[in-house]
Amino acid sequence: MVAESTASPREQAAASFDALYADLHPIGRDPATGGYHRFVYADEELTLREWFTGEARARGLDVHEDRGGNIWAWWGDPADGDAVGTGSHLDSVPQGGPYDGPLGVVSALGAVDLLRSRGVQPRRPLGLVAFADEEGGRFGVACSGSRILTGALSRERALGLTDEDGVSYGEALRRTGRDPESIGRDDEVLGALGTFVELHVEQGRGLIEHDAPLGLYTMIRPHGRYRFDLLGRADHAGATRIQDRDDPMLTQAELVLAARRAAERHGAVATVGRVLVEPNGINAIPSRVRAWLDTRADEEATVRAIVAEVRDAIGVEPFEEMWTARVDLDLDLMERLDGVLGGIPRLPSGAGHDAGIMATAGVPTAMILVRNPTGVSHSPDEHAERDDCVEGVVRLADVLEDLLR
Amino acid sequence: MVAESTASPREQAAASFDALYADLHPIGRDPATGGYHRFVYADEELTLREWFTGEARARGLDVHEDRGGNIWAWWGDPADGDAVGTGSHLDSVPQGGPYDGPLGVVSALGAVDLLRSRGVQPRRPLGLVAFADEEGGRFGVACSGSRILTGALSRERALGLTDEDGVSYGEALRRTGRDPESIGRDDEVLGALGTFVELHVEQGRGLIEHDAPLGLYTMIRPHGRYRFDLLGRADHAGATRIQDRDDPMLTQAELVLAARRAAERHGAVATVGRVLVEPNGINAIPSRVRAWLDTRADEEATVRAIVAEVRDAIGVEPFEEMWTARVDLDLDLMERLDGVLGGIPRLPSGAGHDAGIMATAGVPTAMILVRNPTGVSHSPDEHAERDDCVEGVVRLADVLEDLLR
Repeated sequence: MVAESTASPREQAAASFDALYADLHPIGRDPATGGYHRFVYADEELTLREWFTGEARARGLDVHEDRGGNIWAWWGDPADGDAVGTGSHLDSVPQGGPYDGPLGVVSALGAVDLLRSRGVQPRRPLGLVAFADEEGGRFGVACSGSRILTGALSRERALGLTDEDGVSYGEALRRTGRDPESIGRDDEVLGALGTFVELHVEQGRGLIEHDAPLGLYTMIRPHGRYRFDLLGRADHAGATRIQDRDDPMLTQAELVLAARRAAERHGAVATVGRVLVEPNGINAIPSRVRAWLDTRADEEATVRAIVAEVRDAIGVEPFEEMWTARVDLDLDLMERLDGVLGGIPRLPSGAGHDAGIMATAGVPTAMILVRNPTGVSHSPDEHAERDDCVEGVVRLADVLEDLLR
Repeated sequence: MVAESTASPREQAAASFDALYADLHPIGRDPATGGYHRFVYADEELTLREWFTGEARARGLDVHEDRGGNIWAWWGDPADGDAVGTGSHLDSVPQGGPYDGPLGVVSALGAVDLLRSRGVQPRRPLGLVAFADEEGGRFGVACSGSRILTGALSRERALGLTDEDGVSYGEALRRTGRDPESIGRDDEVLGALGTFVELHVEQGRGLIEHDAPLGLYTMIRPHGRYRFDLLGRADHAGATRIQDRDDPMLTQAELVLAARRAAERHGAVATVGRVLVEPNGINAIPSRVRAWLDTRADEEATVRAIVAEVRDAIGVEPFEEMWTARVDLDLDLMERLDGVLGGIPRLPSGAGHDAGIMATAGVPTAMILVRNPTGVSHSPDEHAERDDCVEGVVRLADVLEDLLR
């Protein structure tokens, strides 16, 4: 009977997981690459919102959208307070993978199914959340949904953001029937939450090296994004002698190599992933190259040092487009989860998460990560094994059962 | 009286030049930068064609479009053969300057005015030409008009070219009422031409250093365009350790610096002016970077050597997208022009020209260049002084008068 009862939650979790993912699988998928394009308030993401709302209602949960555009599905009444929140996001980067975000939402729904079958009667309200726009793939600011919810992103700044087609955040809200004036910090939701747990696929190789299916994040590394505007003089590629040139592409090349050297020296990461060249003609020396540097380290001072070294190497002052301070996740909560999960690996997160925004807003927060056997993220090659995902659903249910007592 | 008759052609030339440029000035001009956007068969270029046709007809010339889409305006009957051709192009690169191309067309019209006022009766037909698409700014192949005219670009290949919006060359022809099936080598026009002279603004600093308003091009440097497809692995900019990365932006940086080193070593030029990054996200290690290398030198072997050195430096084989052999302009014709113009500087051209295509097709061809006081080209900063332009009109008229005897 012991073997039977141990096997059964896994089978139930597997059934929930398979059914939920089968519906998610085709939405926003590029058939040529297998990558996903799911941008906030675009058609694919609206379909995902309908899907989440439908699944939540089918489970008898009360669905409600907060003032940041994030969807909450409540088991119990959040007005009772000290609620447990769990979930993740449904949006993706361009050509993103299938698990970055949706795995946490699917696991939350699957965990509710397990808790129900175990006959758990929550003593605290449980809120399942699908955050809007964790990746910032459309408007450029990551975690805009949770940042608006917590007030970290003001209404004025949010409404002024624009996508590549020049559509503003406000216009995108309006087109989907939302009132741009109603967005902002949502004290009702924030005040209700006593605990937050996000489950997320790992975005590196940490759990591969630990040979473990699950882990806990201890902190989110500090993170800066910088834009360098490299100015030169447009000129003819054939008729302008080398000594007469002022070619900003050379500075861009030096920037890329200087950033790599600095990251290696500091044991950190630095990436130039976005470059825009003007006029970008084959036979034209560019007039301007804009290059973005994304850099992260364990310590904030290290991030600052890397940027300073790059700046000194090329002699150009960057614009700081985004700064995210280091977020230490809640140690007491981590210990409590560890008690349930039984001594699993602890790792820092190199990527940002909505959970980090919630923690910064003062909600005691933990993160569970699920092994990614390719170690690759933000790519169609991102992956998670079904067995590990099912283990994640079961263990998330265990954690929630403990927290809801 | 001598002073009077010397001043008079300059005054006439200045009047023609000012009147013609006043009409040209606003067409396709970006008011923010002063740069021009005039792409073949787009609205602005169609307006320029109407302008040229109108000016030619106002001078009683017979206007006719050849099978390459180039407009010819004839003084005399081309069927008589051994005609003199002169002119240049009206299209521009993105954010191009006001003189690259139009100066040669305006000067041809102004020279006809002068020849008329001098009472010249041509013994050979004179054809004024506005070439279509010298820059290749829309479909990527430079000199497509003259290349189709001479058969250097086949109908099949031309019709398959597409612009950034996916519109094909054939579709662009159709939209402007032209029959795509009718394009191709035009033996009637080619057979009529006995001589070709193109006047063009200089695209470098040669005449500044010679302190001379006009010069002659001796040859057009050989020129190769190469695309490097740099492949890596898309991954998360925050979560992927430096040692786990396969980042093609590093290869792009090495390519840019290797190309510069090779060009300096060989006393040639090499430019990476166009770079496309995928997915081009701030927080994504790129999956692919495509970079284009444009390189030119006096000798073809030098161009080949530079490309080989870049290839060896980065270990990636390029695709040759375009190869233009060295073009030596006609030495007898050059001597004849020099006799008229009186010992002016001779320089190689680092840029390609329709005149080079005509020369390659066997038409004895010369080029007159006009000083560019900024030395800058393919940029709103390109310039020519009015005095130098007027001198160009007068001296082109002198050359044509000599050739038409």
